[in-house]
Formats: sequence, structure tokens, C-alpha cells
Amino acid sequence: MIAKTPQPPYYAVIFTSVRTALEPSEYGQMAQKMEEMARLQPGYLGFESARNDLGITVSYWDSEEAIRNWKAQLEHRLAQKMGKERWYQSYKVRVAHVERDYDFGVES
Amino acid sequence: MIAKTPQPPYYAVIFTSVRTALEPSEYGQMAQKMEEMARLQPGYLGFESARNDLGITVSYWDSEEAIRNWKAQLEHRLAQKMGKERWYQSYKVRVAHVERDYDFGVES
Repeated sequence: MIAKTPQPPYYAVIFTSVRTALEPSEYGQMAQKMEEMARLQPGYLGFESARNDLGITVSYWDSEEAIRNWKAQLEHRLAQKMGKERWYQSYKVRVAHVERDYDFGVES
Repeated sequence: MIAKTPQPPYYAVIFTSVRTALEPSEYGQMAQKMEEMARLQPGYLGFESARNDLGITVSYWDSEEAIRNWKAQLEHRLAQKMGKERWYQSYKVRVAHVERDYDFGVES
């Protein structure tokens, strides 16, 4: 679903990744858990995700501080699970400041 | 593939969409053509795309001007094809300034 974000400005974290072939069902559970955790974070604004060979997840946040807190939680969790090397062949994270938006057919 | 973007800062256009069920093969051709056109634009830095129910395409650009030029081309093309209403149930475009990035396992 297209995330119902507020009027800009706000922040986006663009997470682009290539998966390993390991443990697809465990990975799926982890990814769902991550999204549930994100929703509970202060400053969370929304979440969008799609995956083919490449996976793209964009999460939206109201401040840099919210992103830092989320990253700390995520790394803690991934470290616990030893997830980084197991689940991802490669990934890139880009932190961006959303300056403007426009849409078509989106209920507001 | 994860786009090989330069050191930030640069710009990202996050295009999130829900497709109609119409003309999947024609849509696929159009999407591929769009990507080819983007690559030829001045200021183009990279392109990432994934689709399930939701589609996410992120294109990267070196300036706001490059984004404006690309948008003008895109709208011209979509208008020619009457694509917006036919291909998309809804979409949202967010223009964002990428401030920092980090990665894992990405060749540089």
C-alpha cells in the first residue's frame, strides 16, 4: 500500500538489498517483525516495500533522531540474529530529506 | 541491481504505485522504455525498481533541474500514451535530497 505520509518535509530511509538464498521463511518472519517494530517507533510515518531480485523498502520518519533510534534498534536486532551476513548478499541505505510530493488516485 | 550512486548529496525520486490490471505487456514495454530514456537524461545517476502488489521505483539525479527535465519528458510521454489513468490505479511521487548513505557487500 502507498504510505499515507503527511505534508513534506519529512525523512525517508531507502533500503535497497539483494538477498541470499538462505532461510526464506525465517527471513520473511524477520522482515514482518521489523515492520511491526518500526510502526511502534516514535516518529514513524509509514512503510513501503517490494521485492523481486532486488528488494526496496522505504520507511518514512519525522526526524533524523527517529531514524537514529530505529537504526540502533535494527542493528541490535540484526546482531542478535546474526542477520546481516546470512540474509543479505549486499545492501545500501540512503537517508533522504523529502522536500515535496504529488500523487494521483490516492485517498487522503 | 543496487544503483552505483556517487557520494551524497544528490537527489532521489521515489515513485510508489499500484497498477491497474490493464495491458501488462504494453506496460512492461513502457516501463523499460522509460528506464532507457532516464539513462540518457543529463544528471541521471541510477535507477532501482521492484514490484509486487505495490511497485517502487527510485531514480537518482544530480540536481533538481535534472528531475524537472525528466518529469517534463515523462509527462509528455505519458500524455501521448494516455498512460496515467490506464496504467495506474494510484501513485505517489516523493522528491528527496539524499544526505548520507552506507552499504554492505556493494562493490565500489
